[in-house]
Amino acid sequence: MAKKYADLVKNAVGRMVPTEVNGQKQVPFQGVGKFKPETSKHGPKIVSCADFPEDGNKEVTSLKEALVKAGLKDGMTISTHHHFRNGDLLANKIFDIAKELGVKDLRWVPSASFPCHEHLIQYLEDGTIHHIEGSMNGPLGRFASYGKMRGLGVLRSHGGRYQAIQDGEVKIDIAIIGAACADPFGNANGLYGSSASGLLGFALADSQYADKVIVVTDNMVPFPCIPWQIQGNYVDYTVQVDQVGIPEKIVSGTTQITKSPDRLLLAEMTAQLCWEAGIIRDGFSFQSGAGGTSLAVGDYFAKIMRKEGIKARFARGGSNKYLVSMLEEGLIEYILDGQTFDLKGVQSMADNPNHVWTSPFTSYNYHGKGNFAGLVDVVILGATEVDVNFNANVVTHSDGLLLHGIGGWQNCLFSKTVILPIPLFRDRIPVILDEVTTICGPGELIDVIVTERGIAINPKRKDLIEALKDSTLPIKTIEELKDEAEKICGKPAKANFDDELVAVIKWVDGTIIDSVRKVKP
Amino acid sequence: MAKKYADLVKNAVGRMVPTEVNGQKQVPFQGVGKFKPETSKHGPKIVSCADFPEDGNKEVTSLKEALVKAGLKDGMTISTHHHFRNGDLLANKIFDIAKELGVKDLRWVPSASFPCHEHLIQYLEDGTIHHIEGSMNGPLGRFASYGKMRGLGVLRSHGGRYQAIQDGEVKIDIAIIGAACADPFGNANGLYGSSASGLLGFALADSQYADKVIVVTDNMVPFPCIPWQIQGNYVDYTVQVDQVGIPEKIVSGTTQITKSPDRLLLAEMTAQLCWEAGIIRDGFSFQSGAGGTSLAVGDYFAKIMRKEGIKARFARGGSNKYLVSMLEEGLIEYILDGQTFDLKGVQSMADNPNHVWTSPFTSYNYHGKGNFAGLVDVVILGATEVDVNFNANVVTHSDGLLLHGIGGWQNCLFSKTVILPIPLFRDRIPVILDEVTTICGPGELIDVIVTERGIAINPKRKDLIEALKDSTLPIKTIEELKDEAEKICGKPAKANFDDELVAVIKWVDGTIIDSVRKVKP
Repeated sequence: MAKKYADLVKNAVGRMVPTEVNGQKQVPFQGVGKFKPETSKHGPKIVSCADFPEDGNKEVTSLKEALVKAGLKDGMTISTHHHFRNGDLLANKIFDIAKELGVKDLRWVPSASFPCHEHLIQYLEDGTIHHIEGSMNGPLGRFASYGKMRGLGVLRSHGGRYQAIQDGEVKIDIAIIGAACADPFGNANGLYGSSASGLLGFALADSQYADKVIVVTDNMVPFPCIPWQIQGNYVDYTVQVDQVGIPEKIVSGTTQITKSPDRLLLAEMTAQLCWEAGIIRDGFSFQSGAGGTSLAVGDYFAKIMRKEGIKARFARGGSNKYLVSMLEEGLIEYILDGQTFDLKGVQSMADNPNHVWTSPFTSYNYHGKGNFAGLVDVVILGATEVDVNFNANVVTHSDGLLLHGIGGWQNCLFSKTVILPIPLFRDRIPVILDEVTTICGPGELIDVIVTERGIAINPKRKDLIEALKDSTLPIKTIEELKDEAEKICGKPAKANFDDELVAVIKWVDGTIIDSVRKVKP
Repeated sequence: MAKKYADLVKNAVGRMVPTEVNGQKQVPFQGVGKFKPETSKHGPKIVSCADFPEDGNKEVTSLKEALVKAGLKDGMTISTHHHFRNGDLLANKIFDIAKELGVKDLRWVPSASFPCHEHLIQYLEDGTIHHIEGSMNGPLGRFASYGKMRGLGVLRSHGGRYQAIQDGEVKIDIAIIGAACADPFGNANGLYGSSASGLLGFALADSQYADKVIVVTDNMVPFPCIPWQIQGNYVDYTVQVDQVGIPEKIVSGTTQITKSPDRLLLAEMTAQLCWEAGIIRDGFSFQSGAGGTSLAVGDYFAKIMRKEGIKARFARGGSNKYLVSMLEEGLIEYILDGQTFDLKGVQSMADNPNHVWTSPFTSYNYHGKGNFAGLVDVVILGATEVDVNFNANVVTHSDGLLLHGIGGWQNCLFSKTVILPIPLFRDRIPVILDEVTTICGPGELIDVIVTERGIAINPKRKDLIEALKDSTLPIKTIEELKDEAEKICGKPAKANFDDELVAVIKWVDGTIIDSVRKVKP
């Protein structure tokens, strides 16, 4: 097996990053928009209809049979998607089968992993899985953070994952795509059935570029499965199983607007700022996430829009019942959705042609001829830490533990205005620091930090500063905010790191923006 | 410029075909399903969002500016689509601009050309266009047939065109995609606006694989143009023009069921045969084209289905008002549509989620992991000639003139049952012959020939012969049909060919199935 990594060099944001990771050459981050690859997209092997069933029926009797037919063997790269979130039943089964077959050293490339995948730690330990490239939320992140994974973790944004697969940086041998609904030819969607999750965009690149593609469903319908969010023309085998996901863990149904007065304040200030800056205007567009604060921002937006008679051209989802009700009320013309967070979202996507399913290709891929993240007027995001240069962190905590994925966060930074409403401190640990533990997004792309004790606008955004010069909002410098946090909580302790690297953070163009070090136990 | 062609060899259906065409090496047809390429799909150059407008607005002021920015120069390959059919205003304009700029030796790769493109003959003569790869309906075909085109014509089916572009056999430098509706980012569809043609599937491969892509519309809407049948993430430039097509020539509105008693008889016999053979049954699928006879077949199908309480799972379109009314009546669950032939078809595709727009990738590409042409239970097609081995011709007439394209015809031959309802003779020229002028489809894939004087079933289809053994339908051998035709019309004269080749006919896998010779004037 290749060395975990080699030869650290300093990149354009001053972080030490390896020039080689798990045996593959790497490019250090060179600045936003600076790296231009001179190569071509991955061209998968040409296949022929002559090698597929004449009647289009690609069904095999079990996932094991499909994996064996797909040629599962040592060292292969296996991909899965995370539309089933913490209710996923497939990934664990795949590696149970690999273990049973005695296959070793697999590289797992999920679009994200969740606490339900803690089951896989035994396979990281016994050599079935060599390492994970993809977000490691919770237990797997903790495992990696303590230096227990043999290979180096590679974290990518949703767009960066599409880019890496498209560009051939990650060559997938076998993609396993769980689907709420599919037909025997392999057409699939996430809209219908007991495991409905809305859409399958995170598996699009896998279907297009993997060598072998397996679609697994608990709801097989006769051809054609419409809409074919995944096209059977990319699929090798189909499998019926009893259950692909646990419904109540797929769409939690518990996503609610925050009731915390502090967070409601953050949300109200954010909405007020957007209104005063002229961002909320007829035909505008926005994205706010699924967290309690973000939902509250959307709600304040709705109030302003209703009062002022303003209509948004589109909202970017993660969708939920609040966004759907704005669509139905006519406050939004379109939802361009990447994932649905509750059953209202799933239902609306199935029924309303203006609730559009998208993919990381259309929304986020940086190695395309543009993507629509850049067309969104304002995006509301979170962060675990921000520094005085507006650099932000979303993957590690201040104790250094790698506990979160990047999601679409990096990709959304290309929105016209990026606002992070965050508390000034959490558990008496300041959130605004001299230097973030891990840089996930360069400060030049982050425009506004909204805290309960003041708002900092990036000095680069002279237009915003000008627009808000007469505002009654508590606008301060980011240094003032940092000082205030330290006055209350004291200077924060540094994480207790070992020298060894455990993971790297990719930028949207495939370069490495930062490394994550091992945490001393 | 490369030689037109070199070194004829005999292929698997006994036709002499060149091993090199316009400087590119070729593979002779080896039999159905025999040729398996060992290469990879075309991987276009990787691009970066950094090279595209931050706000997603790719609009330039004119088609000329777009072509110049796209780097139009001598020897390039230019592609267009034919969704505007004989109402297309773009292709002529593109080459007017090329002429104005003094650009020479272009290769034009339309998905089909029409009589409205007769305007381009001057550019074939003056060297602006070197040659055409694509169907040449009418005047351009006649021009090529008389040996006047400098390069060799290359005819492909819709699926074969997708295959050739996907596999890198045809590398497109600039694709120009006319759209009824688009946004400044380049998302486009054929559904809305005065030039609505339904969909844009024939331009899909062009958008995915061309080096530069230009979207031209007379109906620019704010982002997002939904649905994005063409995704702006593949598009370099967008252009607004006054008019992209002539509506009344795009959707003719005149497609009517035949009133000819002979053709009605053919249609009725075809439907009766399908009923007796058990093809028309609950959950079945069918495709019948847009010609008067095919429409009549659909109508007879509807009568049987209504009477017997049968519902089809799907119909494959070319759609029209008849198919749409079957969908609305509930006789068909889905229309999987490749092109809409009238305004009812366009409207239904826009409004009815069960009227699905497809592409040559999903329906026809032979170098995919299956395609859905093979899932269609019965397809009704036409032919200019059929021979006693059931080989059929759709591109040349018996006088040798190349006057038609292949369309999806070759691709549809993979349907479970292929029926050709054709007159036994046309203008006193027999349609069933010892040998067709040009082989477009090998006899092994053609199951039934229905003529007004009898029906011939391919001896390979023992199951069909058995199912129809007690039928009152006039079932004969194909030799009997041929003899009958010759008894009435006499032995047909051979076309007056020169030795020189003017075009080749590709099979669905990119091999050459036949050559077309120059006709002596």
